[in-house]
Amino acid sequence: MSQHIISVSARHRETPFTRRVNAAGVKCYSVYNHMLLPVFFDSVEADYRHLKDHVQVWDVSCERQVEIVGPDAAKLLQILTPRNLSTMTVGQCRYIPVVDDKGGMLNDPVAVKLAEDRYWISIADSDLLFWVKGLAIGFELDVEVFEPDVSPLGVQGPKSDELMARVFGDAVREIKFFRFERFDFQGVSLCVARSGYSKQGGFEIYVDGTELGEPLWDALFAAGEDLNVRAGGPNLIERVEGGLLSYGGDITRENNPYECGLGKFCSVDENSVCIGRDALAEIARTGPSKQIRSLAIEGDPLIPAASPWPILADGKPVGRVSVGVWSPDHRTNVALGIVDKSHWDDGTRVIIATPQGERNATIMEKSFK
Amino acid sequence: MSQHIISVSARHRETPFTRRVNAAGVKCYSVYNHMLLPVFFDSVEADYRHLKDHVQVWDVSCERQVEIVGPDAAKLLQILTPRNLSTMTVGQCRYIPVVDDKGGMLNDPVAVKLAEDRYWISIADSDLLFWVKGLAIGFELDVEVFEPDVSPLGVQGPKSDELMARVFGDAVREIKFFRFERFDFQGVSLCVARSGYSKQGGFEIYVDGTELGEPLWDALFAAGEDLNVRAGGPNLIERVEGGLLSYGGDITRENNPYECGLGKFCSVDENSVCIGRDALAEIARTGPSKQIRSLAIEGDPLIPAASPWPILADGKPVGRVSVGVWSPDHRTNVALGIVDKSHWDDGTRVIIATPQGERNATIMEKSFK
Repeated sequence: MSQHIISVSARHRETPFTRRVNAAGVKCYSVYNHMLLPVFFDSVEADYRHLKDHVQVWDVSCERQVEIVGPDAAKLLQILTPRNLSTMTVGQCRYIPVVDDKGGMLNDPVAVKLAEDRYWISIADSDLLFWVKGLAIGFELDVEVFEPDVSPLGVQGPKSDELMARVFGDAVREIKFFRFERFDFQGVSLCVARSGYSKQGGFEIYVDGTELGEPLWDALFAAGEDLNVRAGGPNLIERVEGGLLSYGGDITRENNPYECGLGKFCSVDENSVCIGRDALAEIARTGPSKQIRSLAIEGDPLIPAASPWPILADGKPVGRVSVGVWSPDHRTNVALGIVDKSHWDDGTRVIIATPQGERNATIMEKSFK
Repeated sequence: MSQHIISVSARHRETPFTRRVNAAGVKCYSVYNHMLLPVFFDSVEADYRHLKDHVQVWDVSCERQVEIVGPDAAKLLQILTPRNLSTMTVGQCRYIPVVDDKGGMLNDPVAVKLAEDRYWISIADSDLLFWVKGLAIGFELDVEVFEPDVSPLGVQGPKSDELMARVFGDAVREIKFFRFERFDFQGVSLCVARSGYSKQGGFEIYVDGTELGEPLWDALFAAGEDLNVRAGGPNLIERVEGGLLSYGGDITRENNPYECGLGKFCSVDENSVCIGRDALAEIARTGPSKQIRSLAIEGDPLIPAASPWPILADGKPVGRVSVGVWSPDHRTNVALGIVDKSHWDDGTRVIIATPQGERNATIMEKSFK
């Protein structure tokens, strides 16, 4: 895995769990929403194996919340996204593309409905707070918009239900996917959602403030010793296998939701109130000219890079790979990239110009898992 | 200097100069506006010495631009900041606090007036684009707002004028502080401003696109060999000595401009159109209750940290140090912190609770240099 040294800076915030993360022997961080995100503790490959077999605790505090509260909260949320939220009920989470006036992606967060007039938007890596607040002020809406001191802690992996049940009681097993319930921990009521940035199943605990951070971390590790619980983080290999997108990496402002395979979350007609409605309606009419696909890239293990790799067909560019990495389970390099319509069909053979040389690759309609 | 390992990620953008920066032997990066910012090449101390004696080339591409263009551009800019811009002329740069509706700092950028209807806002570390765009849409202003592909290259240090004159001609010597002129490089017109994030003097060249990046870098190094030109970056010691603030570190949304010593840039009265006017007017009336100050912290060299250090007087908290580091020139630890009004007078003696133990310190009215 390719790495840099970065200087410790007050611009990169620590979290309620940072002391525990450091004590657990974190080997590599990322910076996400101006905050430290632990990436791996042993190696990307070893953490991948462990995530798929056991259970991990993830410090994903960097999934910051944008809280919207007030009489116009629901109205503002519907202005933010092309996804129709009219049927969203309290207790639900919804993955919502957020776009600008041209239909360009600004973030791909999860909205959490806490009450009829209160929401959290659990954000990917961009200062969505500024967008939401700017619109609220410009449209003179009756809402408060701010970043509460709420830090999600992920519990991910096949043994997540067992570990969580030991700490919060068997009722956590009943939480449905993308729903949350409130559970007490040391007398404090916390939102616990069945969600997370892996395909291995699990939960996200929205931890209010910093005081509960270390006690909760310790309770999970104490309860999970025989489950082989370990500290982990969003795993590059596992998320690429699963086709989970990374905002700022696979998706940028240059992409619209249709290109990202998020067309199913776009309901745009003359009644839509969302920013970018007309731009999205036009794209929906003609269809996107390129789209993100999974790819299998042949040959030796590839080293992930910061710059995209050109996708070539007959010597001409037909797209770009945004991330590619060796998958021990699939015995090939798994990748995500954006591909022109002419070459996006399942099974299309292409060439990838990697820093390690040209490689044969196959476009896939679906993700690896 | 305390450091982390971070994984290479497509979320952390490379710049037009990254290949040259790597070839120059960068030892430490930071992440700033989702982009790689080179921090030092030899050591923070060695780079500091060199910056004060010679001339350095800085890849500050991460100072991204927010471009505002259109009939309402000047109107929008005045909505963004409490600073009165009515006398700003084409060719000028202005340091402008940008605040939210509560008067909280969102960024402390430099505005560059390119034409009567066209501005760049050269930003510190937050996605100000989202704020500007959100307001423009909400207020239905007739402007385009976007991030152009423009990457500043800094030339800083006492020999900056000589180096720049060799590459751009003697006319660069005539550029006044915080003004820019256009100069040709290989047939392309570039904005060259007398500005930069050091107190050693110098320039910032706004490089359009990526193609000119390496030729310009190479031209500066070829012309400056006998000037001992080197690659560098914003230097922690030098900027703390000079009292240059870092948004996200020394300043956050929790601070208003008066607390940051930026009251002189706030003109708020009933005619003001800026967001946060009423909140700022109220703070101006009562005066801030705390303010950022320089501090001299006694004892052995301190290791800079991510978390603030409490400032104590009679055992009670009276502020927080956001950054502290050993200064070879001043033979003491130089620091910046926010201090309660009761203890902010020049010469006040306080205690700093550092991870290396309690230290005596003195509050200073002015910066070290």
